Amino acid sequence: MSEEQGGRRRSSRRASSAGRRGFHQLPWRRVENRFPPMEALSADELEAVQEASYKILEEIGIDFLHPEAIEILKAAGAETTPGSERVRLDRGLVQELVAKAPSRFTFHARNPEHHLVMGGNVMVFGSVGSAPNVSDLDGGRRVGNFKDYCDLVRLCQSLNIIHLCSGYPVEPVDLDPATRHLDAVAACVTLTDKCFHGYALGRERMLDAIEIARIARGLDDERLSAEPSLFTIVNTSSPLRLDGPMIEGLIEMARRNQIVVITPFTLSGAMAPATIAGALVQQNAEALAGIALVQAVRAGAPVMYGGFTSNVDMKSGAPAFGTPEYVRAAFAGGQLARRNGVPYRSSNVNASNTVDAQAAYESQMSIWGAVMGHVNLMMHAAGWMEGGLTASFEKLILDAEMLQGMAEVLQPLDVSEEALGLDAIREVGPGGHYFGAAHTLERYETAFYSPILSDWRNYESWREGGGPDATQRANQIYKDLLQSYEAPPLDPAIAEELESFVARRKQEGGVKAA
Amino acid sequence: MSEEQGGRRRSSRRASSAGRRGFHQLPWRRVENRFPPMEALSADELEAVQEASYKILEEIGIDFLHPEAIEILKAAGAETTPGSERVRLDRGLVQELVAKAPSRFTFHARNPEHHLVMGGNVMVFGSVGSAPNVSDLDGGRRVGNFKDYCDLVRLCQSLNIIHLCSGYPVEPVDLDPATRHLDAVAACVTLTDKCFHGYALGRERMLDAIEIARIARGLDDERLSAEPSLFTIVNTSSPLRLDGPMIEGLIEMARRNQIVVITPFTLSGAMAPATIAGALVQQNAEALAGIALVQAVRAGAPVMYGGFTSNVDMKSGAPAFGTPEYVRAAFAGGQLARRNGVPYRSSNVNASNTVDAQAAYESQMSIWGAVMGHVNLMMHAAGWMEGGLTASFEKLILDAEMLQGMAEVLQPLDVSEEALGLDAIREVGPGGHYFGAAHTLERYETAFYSPILSDWRNYESWREGGGPDATQRANQIYKDLLQSYEAPPLDPAIAEELESFVARRKQEGGVKAA
Repeated sequence: MSEEQGGRRRSSRRASSAGRRGFHQLPWRRVENRFPPMEALSADELEAVQEASYKILEEIGIDFLHPEAIEILKAAGAETTPGSERVRLDRGLVQELVAKAPSRFTFHARNPEHHLVMGGNVMVFGSVGSAPNVSDLDGGRRVGNFKDYCDLVRLCQSLNIIHLCSGYPVEPVDLDPATRHLDAVAACVTLTDKCFHGYALGRERMLDAIEIARIARGLDDERLSAEPSLFTIVNTSSPLRLDGPMIEGLIEMARRNQIVVITPFTLSGAMAPATIAGALVQQNAEALAGIALVQAVRAGAPVMYGGFTSNVDMKSGAPAFGTPEYVRAAFAGGQLARRNGVPYRSSNVNASNTVDAQAAYESQMSIWGAVMGHVNLMMHAAGWMEGGLTASFEKLILDAEMLQGMAEVLQPLDVSEEALGLDAIREVGPGGHYFGAAHTLERYETAFYSPILSDWRNYESWREGGGPDATQRANQIYKDLLQSYEAPPLDPAIAEELESFVARRKQEGGVKAA
Repeated sequence: MSEEQGGRRRSSRRASSAGRRGFHQLPWRRVENRFPPMEALSADELEAVQEASYKILEEIGIDFLHPEAIEILKAAGAETTPGSERVRLDRGLVQELVAKAPSRFTFHARNPEHHLVMGGNVMVFGSVGSAPNVSDLDGGRRVGNFKDYCDLVRLCQSLNIIHLCSGYPVEPVDLDPATRHLDAVAACVTLTDKCFHGYALGRERMLDAIEIARIARGLDDERLSAEPSLFTIVNTSSPLRLDGPMIEGLIEMARRNQIVVITPFTLSGAMAPATIAGALVQQNAEALAGIALVQAVRAGAPVMYGGFTSNVDMKSGAPAFGTPEYVRAAFAGGQLARRNGVPYRSSNVNASNTVDAQAAYESQMSIWGAVMGHVNLMMHAAGWMEGGLTASFEKLILDAEMLQGMAEVLQPLDVSEEALGLDAIREVGPGGHYFGAAHTLERYETAFYSPILSDWRNYESWREGGGPDATQRANQIYKDLLQSYEAPPLDPAIAEELESFVARRKQEGGVKAA
């Protein structure tokens, strides 16, 4: 055969002695997207969506389930009705408020090398957040707990392609709910030096997280307000509603110039119309309402436009992720965020129940959709499974490979004289090979992408090595990574202040159940 | 929790009673790419690659290992040396010849509904070709054989998203090599009515395949020449060489106006320089040489520009596929094909040894790279594994899902007044849901993408159903598909003519070993 497989045979002889190699990854770096964004909507269609969103805000309105939000918006000029939670915002007010949001800002980590730019062409990848369950091949699927929580945070620290911790990777259910947030957020300071998240679950928890972020960075309140150092996700209770605890968190964060990511939860066919266009209209209205509230609290506060639009399977009601609809919504979401001048958040999602081919192809759809849609913050970028119900250790490694590969796709090609290689082609000539060419030997070490997870051994060597599939290899890799984990250095004074803050708040009883 | 997973919980209750549903797929249709192509090279860089390729053709030259090719090119104006296989082509000659190639043409199937447009924004997906081994979960990995060959061709016929049969899906090693091509190509006429491939493995086999294509379409020789009805892949023996049997096939095909796809096999670091830019320069030179030869044989003959550039793992020599290098080479390959006015061929490749997450994520990288690079013919689009060494039944189903999903991504979004859904949003209002809304019920059946393979049941239902992973589900799906396969109707006169042609050629002994 002289077809393509012949070449594999030809060169695979050299591969037969290569076994699994040690773990290696590309260094921490800023990921910039130099490609133009993909657009799912024409310019006219984009305006039609924006126009319909304005109509929702003006004619239908949004329910803000907290009197403080209603007061703030009323003071800003919104139309409110005594005794009602409904707020109507005319487009002039929305435009005025949204225009105050920065299009780009810096997110500060306690390690300055891990500061992040949010906006422009920069892409930030966050770990899985908010899963109630956790899973790996050894222990199976289990309820979230603090040991797994800490291990997932350690992996987030160890993997260079993960830029921040997007919330509790898994809910540590074994911790007392009244003080859980104290231990959980404090762990983000001791186990990692990357940027992290605090939950907008009422005023007290939010303030505790802000205080922990302040302590971690060794700043006073004023300086913290000048340097955003914490972010929170504010999900709308779609359709067209923002709940009380989320609003309290939003207000406290915005007041202190910390980062709020407004993410409407517009599952088409369930909490949003059964058309992608309709879900986008609703997403856009809800996002604009949230962004407007942030700006009404504090003009110029850092805020992001979140898109989470997907759809349910109409035959079963089950949510679907990483679908063609999801991809097009991710493209359009980026257009809407840019149209409104706010950095864009999307996610790496899938609906698979196990770390298999479906998990990989649905995630790749989400990743490509987000990246080609020019995402700025990709939440749940590593470890998210089952529509968010499980954080998986193996999926975290699988995603790290896919993200690192994507970051490399975005690197420019070297098209220098040397890279074009005419001299090498002349030297080797027709019918030769490049294995021993000087041009090849000079590039031996760094010529090509080196994978985290992919196994390129030939079939025979792979079988001799036990024939592990990608999920089994990921299992070994995550355990090796945990084995070699080292906690990032932490100033003893900060460690002490953190410890005594947590101890004091625990003594006070933490946050009482609502 | 009011984070994203909450929504999954909210709607997953409805999913719990949903089990596996029967097989369904989207209808056969033309897939058009309405997005702009991704570009890995700037305009200047593209010209630098083209310029370097011209220099190769002018200064180094290409070895054509067949005297007839040398004569044809000499007559066209190329520089040849008596006693040498080296041919040098100056850029003026190359440009003149390549300019004669059509930028778009029709590929005719025996079922007119399966005719294909090759070129423009149209994308055609072909099944796996040329694997020496075949595999499924039941029988494991085994040497290619005619039974599996026929089953793979049947699946190619059954799956609407597969537009053509890209060669022997697996080598039927149990058939006599002298007559194997007769049975194998004849099976492409009886088991499918889609477009198919004949191998350029010497003059006789090529002519037999052309004759079978002619019989299948019920045409005379003249009409066949007006209606391209067969295609062949011509791989260069990189670097800078075309072998004798391939040249014979190329010449016979081009003479009869049948489709030749020139595909340099430029594995960077092995048969091409250890830089992607260098491999692209060489790919482009080899492709232009092959296209020029086709046009020197017959001006205007249909020809395609193939890109197969990937790289070897420099540590082991193993070929790698679906890598970041592969994606950027796929983008650049499209640019070079368009620069030269010839339709573009790429592939869906991966290097995994088993149908796992790696197979899926490497394939998604290849598919997205090819599609965003504006591929016209995606070879090996379904079923290719292990760098081409194995055709997998389960991978065929997995790929069909990924391809069908991608085709759906390329569909325009409906942004009509009804789709924007303002009335539905008004009707449901803040805090409601859309399950029972009229707007939803009207769209119940067809609102969203319906998958071939993805399993969206909730975890509990999935476990109760045996917890099958995607590969296990693909196994069941392919068997169900074979069960329900029906051969496409074939005119009895054509069947008889085909049978007697094959019988006669067998009696003559087929093709003697070289």
